[in-house]
Amino acid sequence: MRLDDAINAIRPLDEAAMVAARERQTRLTKPAGSLGALEDLAVRLAGLAGHCPPPIPQRPAVAVFAGDHGVHAQGVTPWPKEVTAQMVANFLAGGAVVNAFARQVGAAVIVVDVGVATPILAPAPFRGGELWGRTVRAGTRDLAVEPALTPAEALAAVEVGISVAQDLVAEGYDILVTGDMGIANTTPAAALIAAFTGVHPVDVTGRGTGVDDATLAHKTSVIAAALDLHRPDVNDPMGVLAAVGGLEHAAIAGFILGGAALAVPVVLDGVIACSSALVAAALAPDSVGALVAGHRSAEPGASVALSHLGLAPLVDLGLRLGEGTGAVLALPIVACAVRVLHDVATFDSAGVAKK
Amino acid sequence: MRLDDAINAIRPLDEAAMVAARERQTRLTKPAGSLGALEDLAVRLAGLAGHCPPPIPQRPAVAVFAGDHGVHAQGVTPWPKEVTAQMVANFLAGGAVVNAFARQVGAAVIVVDVGVATPILAPAPFRGGELWGRTVRAGTRDLAVEPALTPAEALAAVEVGISVAQDLVAEGYDILVTGDMGIANTTPAAALIAAFTGVHPVDVTGRGTGVDDATLAHKTSVIAAALDLHRPDVNDPMGVLAAVGGLEHAAIAGFILGGAALAVPVVLDGVIACSSALVAAALAPDSVGALVAGHRSAEPGASVALSHLGLAPLVDLGLRLGEGTGAVLALPIVACAVRVLHDVATFDSAGVAKK
Repeated sequence: MRLDDAINAIRPLDEAAMVAARERQTRLTKPAGSLGALEDLAVRLAGLAGHCPPPIPQRPAVAVFAGDHGVHAQGVTPWPKEVTAQMVANFLAGGAVVNAFARQVGAAVIVVDVGVATPILAPAPFRGGELWGRTVRAGTRDLAVEPALTPAEALAAVEVGISVAQDLVAEGYDILVTGDMGIANTTPAAALIAAFTGVHPVDVTGRGTGVDDATLAHKTSVIAAALDLHRPDVNDPMGVLAAVGGLEHAAIAGFILGGAALAVPVVLDGVIACSSALVAAALAPDSVGALVAGHRSAEPGASVALSHLGLAPLVDLGLRLGEGTGAVLALPIVACAVRVLHDVATFDSAGVAKK
Repeated sequence: MRLDDAINAIRPLDEAAMVAARERQTRLTKPAGSLGALEDLAVRLAGLAGHCPPPIPQRPAVAVFAGDHGVHAQGVTPWPKEVTAQMVANFLAGGAVVNAFARQVGAAVIVVDVGVATPILAPAPFRGGELWGRTVRAGTRDLAVEPALTPAEALAAVEVGISVAQDLVAEGYDILVTGDMGIANTTPAAALIAAFTGVHPVDVTGRGTGVDDATLAHKTSVIAAALDLHRPDVNDPMGVLAAVGGLEHAAIAGFILGGAALAVPVVLDGVIACSSALVAAALAPDSVGALVAGHRSAEPGASVALSHLGLAPLVDLGLRLGEGTGAVLALPIVACAVRVLHDVATFDSAGVAKK
């Protein structure tokens, strides 16, 4: 599916299905409103599915989009660039945290190489997940000195994400989870969030995988200078993405649009996914209807982006790892919220008195 | 196991195992501290198990302790008393929210009748869980006018909880989840929390399953008057429990002590469980080491109790249903936290560079 086709396929949430879900919640054997945020979540997923009850998500897939970043040259992270490829190999071997979490909750892990710059020394056999080679280019250019991507590259990366969503849904996966790997990728994420929300870089830039005070100050100034250099225009979301984004950020934006076009829920992980969701929302506002905020990352930009999108996270435990880990933790909660609409008896059917 | 034996069997968390778990966290392929609260949780569970890694919890059991309350006569809730027995029948039929959640995450549901006052019209066959009849008496006395339980009844109910924990662990369950059902049971819970923490009833009394402003004010005054009447002494925890507690509160306190005595984690649900945990902690301070705070109930007393116990909840989604529902949502998170210590590769073994 091309980008324009995906955008055109995205529909608003179905009001009738949401009304039916809200009405059903009131008849179930529980005090009104007693499931808190889970009730709203189930209502939204009914709206996405277009009927009530919506399907219980049974086959989750985590797509871990991996790419490298030219801005690594600016010293925004203490980690060597090679760690991107090394962690991809770790995912394929099944040794990363996202593999452990996915194993626990029964999710598949698919690693999508959309722009890893150094060779991936993949293990054989793969015990952790599949590797899908969809490289657009071997890492972005340095956004501190020039646009990170050409318009054609940004579009190609978005369409990789759309096609990954399509392919996974065609394989029978019914809930999509965003994952990411890319050393230095919280820098383009913060730049995207600052650009789309208008919040100053100092309030959206975080320590990523753990930078010290001096590096945090430097990282923030790199982002502020890049925004001054490119002067991104939010009315041209693809232009913003090309100027200060990343290949995995672009692909995740496409993944969201692809999921939304197919009316399949997409669970957002942390700050990278949140920045991508701003791109997707700018391109197709109704795509937000397909989104479930998996967790609140410790990165400040994630909260700014979620607030801008009007999404409340399900898990809030101080995670700042990425890979999809926070979103995978939320999967059983999403399934439980929907299962209520299927399994729970009504006051009438169970013979329980009301107050 | 008698109460004294359970108390004597409870050990502090094993420091060496916790040191080993903390050290292992630093070698795994993730930035230091990037799993936030999950790292501390895994460390505590290593301390409980006495070795690192601790076992991944694989077989959860939710024990839903059900009882009725004499204080119902004071008009502290708009729900009829008969709903306790009706909801027990609903649990057994598999139609309640706790059944739906337990089905989703693979937990067993065991309903323990420790003091239901009206007949349980149980369905046949049971599709939702087992019914264990361990009635101490058919509901408590009215704590607004006399002690809710005699010392012997309170002890018997605590020992029911201990024996349920023992029996479940003997059957192979490796993580215990507290559940409760009892119309009016947030009233004794708030009284217990006020008594053990010293916080005024106005700050620990909530709307339970949904009372209006007038009923909330009346409920608060009933609790305050009961505390004035009984003048519970925190140096006599069993006396406090007998004066203003409930049968399910007592049984859950015993369930916690039983789990702790067997070094099996106990996941707390909402305000009823939190009030019971204060009883358990007063009887055996080291029992807190076995506790995992499953979620933050919307009831204000739950947060006061958790803070008093030094526990941070895993899920915080505005639930106020009870039954064990909030704790069941947390089970996959607990398993994921522990699985990290088993499955995740080290930087050395995965060939990933450090920063």
